[in-house]
Amino acid sequence: MKLTMDREDILPVLANMANIADRRPVQPILAHVLIEAAGQHCRFIATDQEVQLSVDKDHPVDMPGSCAVPARKLYDICRALPEHTPLEFHTDGDKLLLKAAKSRFTLHVLPASQFPYLSIHSNRCQGNCDAAQFREALAVTANTMAQNDARIFLNGVLLEIQGQEMRLVATDGHRLAMMTLPFASSLEAESFQCILPRKAVMELLRIVSTGDIQLSLSDTSFVLDDGSQQFACKLIDAKYPDYRRVIPQGHPFFAVIDRQSFKSALQQSEVLVSDRNPTTQVHLDDNLMTLRSRNEEQEEGEVELTIAYQSQALDIAFNSRYLTDTIQIFNQDQIRMRVKEGNSAAVFTPMDVDNPLYILMPVRL
Amino acid sequence: MKLTMDREDILPVLANMANIADRRPVQPILAHVLIEAAGQHCRFIATDQEVQLSVDKDHPVDMPGSCAVPARKLYDICRALPEHTPLEFHTDGDKLLLKAAKSRFTLHVLPASQFPYLSIHSNRCQGNCDAAQFREALAVTANTMAQNDARIFLNGVLLEIQGQEMRLVATDGHRLAMMTLPFASSLEAESFQCILPRKAVMELLRIVSTGDIQLSLSDTSFVLDDGSQQFACKLIDAKYPDYRRVIPQGHPFFAVIDRQSFKSALQQSEVLVSDRNPTTQVHLDDNLMTLRSRNEEQEEGEVELTIAYQSQALDIAFNSRYLTDTIQIFNQDQIRMRVKEGNSAAVFTPMDVDNPLYILMPVRL
Repeated sequence: MKLTMDREDILPVLANMANIADRRPVQPILAHVLIEAAGQHCRFIATDQEVQLSVDKDHPVDMPGSCAVPARKLYDICRALPEHTPLEFHTDGDKLLLKAAKSRFTLHVLPASQFPYLSIHSNRCQGNCDAAQFREALAVTANTMAQNDARIFLNGVLLEIQGQEMRLVATDGHRLAMMTLPFASSLEAESFQCILPRKAVMELLRIVSTGDIQLSLSDTSFVLDDGSQQFACKLIDAKYPDYRRVIPQGHPFFAVIDRQSFKSALQQSEVLVSDRNPTTQVHLDDNLMTLRSRNEEQEEGEVELTIAYQSQALDIAFNSRYLTDTIQIFNQDQIRMRVKEGNSAAVFTPMDVDNPLYILMPVRL
Repeated sequence: MKLTMDREDILPVLANMANIADRRPVQPILAHVLIEAAGQHCRFIATDQEVQLSVDKDHPVDMPGSCAVPARKLYDICRALPEHTPLEFHTDGDKLLLKAAKSRFTLHVLPASQFPYLSIHSNRCQGNCDAAQFREALAVTANTMAQNDARIFLNGVLLEIQGQEMRLVATDGHRLAMMTLPFASSLEAESFQCILPRKAVMELLRIVSTGDIQLSLSDTSFVLDDGSQQFACKLIDAKYPDYRRVIPQGHPFFAVIDRQSFKSALQQSEVLVSDRNPTTQVHLDDNLMTLRSRNEEQEEGEVELTIAYQSQALDIAFNSRYLTDTIQIFNQDQIRMRVKEGNSAAVFTPMDVDNPLYILMPVRL
């Protein structure tokens, strides 16, 4: 294999490859990026056997070939080189020679035949959506997934396609986040569900940016294609619980909260919550929200906040960390909070639309 | 005790206090900041029994008194409050009440009588210097101190005062950094040496900024006063080795290196050094420096760099990490490197002056 590429062409690709490749791999090959070069075309692939990223580049190849190169080392070398350096790759037996300006490097490569491609079959459902919207939905739900839960289906994000909409849902049993976006789907009436594992969600947040993306799904695999890169992963093999049952219906009480003031108030009140049992008591009264916290040393905080609220006085307690996550989930200036009664779940949404939606279970004191 | 202060007046003070106070203290009081208020004057003090910071504020006091308040919690609360909030402090038994805008907090305080002031006697040598210069000398030497070395004197920075100069020196046995600055001293002919411990060096780097500072030293204590804050610490009770013996005399070979190109070349070559034994081989020849590295997998890097060098060809090997530190120590565009022979120490300095000076011992291959 022999080819020459400009550093700027290849650096963002290698950055993503180094992230996907395993840092402490069980098999050495999983720390490598596979480079395949033929004709006018190069392909870069990395996998840790859970997720796989493949990037195609139209680029003239001097001599076709393929090999697997240590992904992190190759990225670190290219990153340290001056901008717009032409990089000349040349394999020689089990070595890759890399010449760049006045530098030359010899890397140990593994044969392409050893590369463990992820086996992917994803023809059940296809469709297109906007990358930025998909990314926002991933960001909204990523925080709310469970981590290492015995209920394995909670350690990921539910992807539900129904008609021309895609919905992302995540819950850890204490709270639930949900966001819906337009999805130009091949499915007509039928609906389709699958569960993206945590690792895939985190990697997608790095990779997905803007433009149009195509998703191809099956019961076992997820593939995202944005025209230049293809991301694939296996899905969690389980059934997601019926999240619709959790969404409270009918909320007699609602408040409108300024997001910036809420953020400041939560940060103040969080300082004096208990470490073992971080709880914030929320008191709603005539246009006033009061946050109360108390720790094991009997230290106390009481923070008042002007809101729009005209219903009867109401007390409700939440896990402080989960309440603070509200600030991350919404980027609107105003947040609407709806509650049924003191012991029921609270529903947070933007002012004018129920999307995204964040449900927080109360803590019983 | 009762007093009212503006958040902006007290926030930077509390930030420094929270840093000095112990996060995991053996005695609870060491996590506290002592507040002493009387007349037109407030004083804040924190110590972890190794270092102590005390800040004086001219400020009217409504009711005199003193107490020790949890330093990190007080800082976190004030940081979360809106800008320019007036803060009202009021002690009530073993509680401190803090009112700020629409927030109120109750913190558990300890009696001032329990506060373990560091006992400091520092009248042997006094003098003044420029804060920015002192800070630079600390930054130059901080990286080169040993860490947890059995030779306890190496785990700190030597402060040597001679005539109207102060010199800071640090060495870990493999390299030595040294910087000299003007010091308006009370000592005349006599010279004075003491060793600042690592912890003090790191805290001073946070605290010292610009302006004029006064140092007061004894055989056991160090005190720095910048007019508003006083930093004190105990010194390392040991004799520093004679660092002058290490400085090579006579360097027939010298090179002038562009710092930015050197940085890029070192970063490239570092990727392929051995993890266990990170070594860079430096080859000097007619206006050319070549850096060579090789790791356990027999992967190799060779990076060339144009320099000014007109002497005979020379090979010398260094610890890669220590060689890279050169980049941090100098901020000049050009670095001068002097060597006696292949197996001798290299001396790095700016172009026109031997200050700061960095000596690097070679690695024998």
